[in-house]
Amino acid sequence: MNNNSSQKNWKDKLHEIIYEADTPAGKSFDVIILIMILASIILVMLESVSYLNDKYASLFNALEWVITIVFTIEYFLRIIAINKPKNYIFSFFGIIDLLSTVPKYLSILFVGTHALVALRALRLLRVFRILKLARFIGESNNLVKALKASRVKISVFLLAVIIVAIILGTVMYLVEGSDHGFNSIPKSVYWCIVTLTTVGYGDISPETPLGQLIASIIMILGYGIIAVPTGIVSAEYTQQVKHKMPLNTQHCSNCNADNHLDGAKFCHKCGEDLYNE
Amino acid sequence: MNNNSSQKNWKDKLHEIIYEADTPAGKSFDVIILIMILASIILVMLESVSYLNDKYASLFNALEWVITIVFTIEYFLRIIAINKPKNYIFSFFGIIDLLSTVPKYLSILFVGTHALVALRALRLLRVFRILKLARFIGESNNLVKALKASRVKISVFLLAVIIVAIILGTVMYLVEGSDHGFNSIPKSVYWCIVTLTTVGYGDISPETPLGQLIASIIMILGYGIIAVPTGIVSAEYTQQVKHKMPLNTQHCSNCNADNHLDGAKFCHKCGEDLYNE
Amino acid sequence: MNNNSSQKNWKDKLHEIIYEADTPAGKSFDVIILIMILASIILVMLESVSYLNDKYASLFNALEWVITIVFTIEYFLRIIAINKPKNYIFSFFGIIDLLSTVPKYLSILFVGTHALVALRALRLLRVFRILKLARFIGESNNLVKALKASRVKISVFLLAVIIVAIILGTVMYLVEGSDHGFNSIPKSVYWCIVTLTTVGYGDISPETPLGQLIASIIMILGYGIIAVPTGIVSAEYTQQVKHKMPLNTQHCSNCNADNHLDGAKFCHKCGEDLYNE
Amino acid sequence: MNNNSSQKNWKDKLHEIIYEADTPAGKSFDVIILIMILASIILVMLESVSYLNDKYASLFNALEWVITIVFTIEYFLRIIAINKPKNYIFSFFGIIDLLSTVPKYLSILFVGTHALVALRALRLLRVFRILKLARFIGESNNLVKALKASRVKISVFLLAVIIVAIILGTVMYLVEGSDHGFNSIPKSVYWCIVTLTTVGYGDISPETPLGQLIASIIMILGYGIIAVPTGIVSAEYTQQVKHKMPLNTQHCSNCNADNHLDGAKFCHKCGEDLYNE
Repeated sequence: MNNNSSQKNWKDKLHEIIYEADTPAGKSFDVIILIMILASIILVMLESVSYLNDKYASLFNALEWVITIVFTIEYFLRIIAINKPKNYIFSFFGIIDLLSTVPKYLSILFVGTHALVALRALRLLRVFRILKLARFIGESNNLVKALKASRVKISVFLLAVIIVAIILGTVMYLVEGSDHGFNSIPKSVYWCIVTLTTVGYGDISPETPLGQLIASIIMILGYGIIAVPTGIVSAEYTQQVKHKMPLNTQHCSNCNADNHLDGAKFCHKCGEDLYNE
Repeated sequence: MNNNSSQKNWKDKLHEIIYEADTPAGKSFDVIILIMILASIILVMLESVSYLNDKYASLFNALEWVITIVFTIEYFLRIIAINKPKNYIFSFFGIIDLLSTVPKYLSILFVGTHALVALRALRLLRVFRILKLARFIGESNNLVKALKASRVKISVFLLAVIIVAIILGTVMYLVEGSDHGFNSIPKSVYWCIVTLTTVGYGDISPETPLGQLIASIIMILGYGIIAVPTGIVSAEYTQQVKHKMPLNTQHCSNCNADNHLDGAKFCHKCGEDLYNE
Repeated sequence: MNNNSSQKNWKDKLHEIIYEADTPAGKSFDVIILIMILASIILVMLESVSYLNDKYASLFNALEWVITIVFTIEYFLRIIAINKPKNYIFSFFGIIDLLSTVPKYLSILFVGTHALVALRALRLLRVFRILKLARFIGESNNLVKALKASRVKISVFLLAVIIVAIILGTVMYLVEGSDHGFNSIPKSVYWCIVTLTTVGYGDISPETPLGQLIASIIMILGYGIIAVPTGIVSAEYTQQVKHKMPLNTQHCSNCNADNHLDGAKFCHKCGEDLYNE
Repeated sequence: MNNNSSQKNWKDKLHEIIYEADTPAGKSFDVIILIMILASIILVMLESVSYLNDKYASLFNALEWVITIVFTIEYFLRIIAINKPKNYIFSFFGIIDLLSTVPKYLSILFVGTHALVALRALRLLRVFRILKLARFIGESNNLVKALKASRVKISVFLLAVIIVAIILGTVMYLVEGSDHGFNSIPKSVYWCIVTLTTVGYGDISPETPLGQLIASIIMILGYGIIAVPTGIVSAEYTQQVKHKMPLNTQHCSNCNADNHLDGAKFCHKCGEDLYNE
């Protein structure tokens, strides 16, 4: 049992280092993993530049293997350190960790799967967890609340944008036709989204006067309706921020209730005179 | 009369299924129609892709006929189920339903009208009615109120944008001339709208130094004035949202003070018990 | 003297018709002028389309002369109808009216001045005066106040954008060089404004990796700082709208002061009890 | 000592002229320097236009030397006039001043360093200091406060945008491949930033249907998330502006009520004269 207990301690310690960031060891582990992730992303990027890959292919390959082995060890350590490995393996980050490690091994067996190494970019999402970025956004998480409150409205809005894009894209397909690049409805809808969102690549652009007129209307529409999501988030966020406002910091001397309105004279919970201390 | 009554019941039932969504049958009908609409849109899209249409032309045609017949049946059921068929036939959705069904029949008689099948995309608008999306936007419809309140202002704003586009487009026509793509005033105005709305296709772009200077001014103008509609919607919506402040409508029976916080039990002005009426 | 008086009356009447819009005659005059302006703009636009002008050159020329003569008569009527003609001749609209009439006459004497007819587009600005569009924006003109209040801030902001564009444009000139289209600093600055304002024509675009990196930073910068003018207008406008809010419509029975805070019991000017009527 | 004192006076006076703008001499100095800076920027711009430089190379060179010598004198005067020259030399503007003067001298010794003269554009930043533009933004600097308050949130937001751009850029590299311009991950990420920020050059654009679908999603994403920084700045600025509400900080000496309107003479709760203390 003593052996079992020491093993448990060892496991607990490992868990603390890998999954938490409160101890110096845990912090160092997180920082090292973060640097490894950034290095692996940069490596994947450099590899994809053909003239660099031609020169340093063997160096890149060696570094790839180093990173892959480190990530593999990390992956198994994470499985060992947790009591219920399923919780990690089938979690969002567990799947990403697996997906970013396996392709390199597959590339030995199958030709052409090497490109999947790029999936490693997904590990960047871990930056949010490691840096606990959400914490920086605000103690009371007003922004997150505002985004949650406006999520449904913005979804409906984006759905409306997509439906408008489908309808206007179809209209443009009928108006411009395949001679001017609008050679199918999906492509027309794609063009319409490019226009509505004010991106405007110019790979396809209307050439008939009527098409340019409709395009102008779509552009002005897109320019006008961008005000909607912006207005929603602004208003909801203003609302969230304001809740800290019209209340004073008075605490009732009788029942200790707070959240009194500015100017209140008596406690709204027990009726005690607030200024009769 | 019994026959008449049973017929009426039958008609009432049909009306409930087709026009309402409160009963399970009505809900199923709406869902089926929605799926049919989505299927018909996807079909129209796939048909417009020439290499798919070359391969599966007969399959697409068969599916077109199935959907057209289903929509035709639905159209006549809607006419039968309603007491005053005119209310449906000349309504917005009634006209769209007709427009999206007729072209397929016309394509037997006239060559070239088949493309009008694409009008079926308009039926997508029904999504809003079926899903009652407006309901999701908010019980009190603050957003809709805000948009209505700012409708006039945004219209005037967009009119101003169009006038500015016409004037600046004319100026660019004089400055750049037809050698650089600005070969008519309507095209120049089109380019100006492309620029003001920050879409920027690049199909036409200024080439003379003076033209590029004016274009820069137009861009900065467009970048600055996008703040106007956004500001309008934000402010109006903030205004609408504020009306549901966490204050209740209670009035103190003793001193008649209002603006009590939700959940307050005693008046904040005189200490009277608010619910001791 | 009777003659003089009747002449004055005649002049007064003309002034009422031309400069005011309260009488039916004045309204009709404004509407006719507005239609003439729109017709003249459309005519100028159609003339600039070369294949239309080739066909209908003589028709267009005839219509041009009709419109020019009508505008000339209007111009002289405006001078006659006003007591101090200078007030009209040197006013903003007076100069525009002259500029939009003269080019047609000049085109007889000088070849090549015909293009200046396009200056007529400036007359479109009269739409604002005739339709009194400002009135639609809001009784209390909150929007206009908000824009005035934020004018200085937005100007400083736009100046900052221009300075940033000059600096970053110069940097891009050094980085990309003339081989990739950045062949002078003014052109680089133009490109930088195109990028910062998220217009993005693509007539010039960075090709070196370093150039693309800097371009990415400029784009993200432009994407982020668009929040500034929007935030300014939103906040100022919210502020303007709010002034209608926490005040009630009570008027003091003693001193007739208004603008009392909601919930005020005594007049803030004379101390009279507001509810003791 | 007398000599020393007079020297000190002379130094003090120089300091007042160069570093301050309260005296007429100080103001004139600032204005002259500002004009010189603008002239030097315009000169650098004109020089970079090759057909102008071919014509006026010697004139430009002469003017360059005049400006360089004036800036050199200014640089040494600034060092002499300050008590601790290090404070100036290693300050932000000190380094910029050096960087904008040295290249011209280097161009005698080394060929090819002349282009660095363009660094002079950085001196434009001095405009902010000379014009004290910050002062125009608002007495209470509400905007600056709002931007400071939202700085962290906007940074986290922009970091999130960059991470999303890296992930989606990598996905597009896998989907589109190097045949359609997406020939390396960094280039794909660059394209993704171009799309997310709604710039949309069109130098690279998706050509496969799947690529265009993903691009559409990225565009709609970019169109939607621009609401976030805008919402943050709007809300924070609204918050800052609200603090200067039209209420004063007066408290009634009788009933201690606050929230009196600016200009109120009597307490709105008890009718006490507010200024009769």
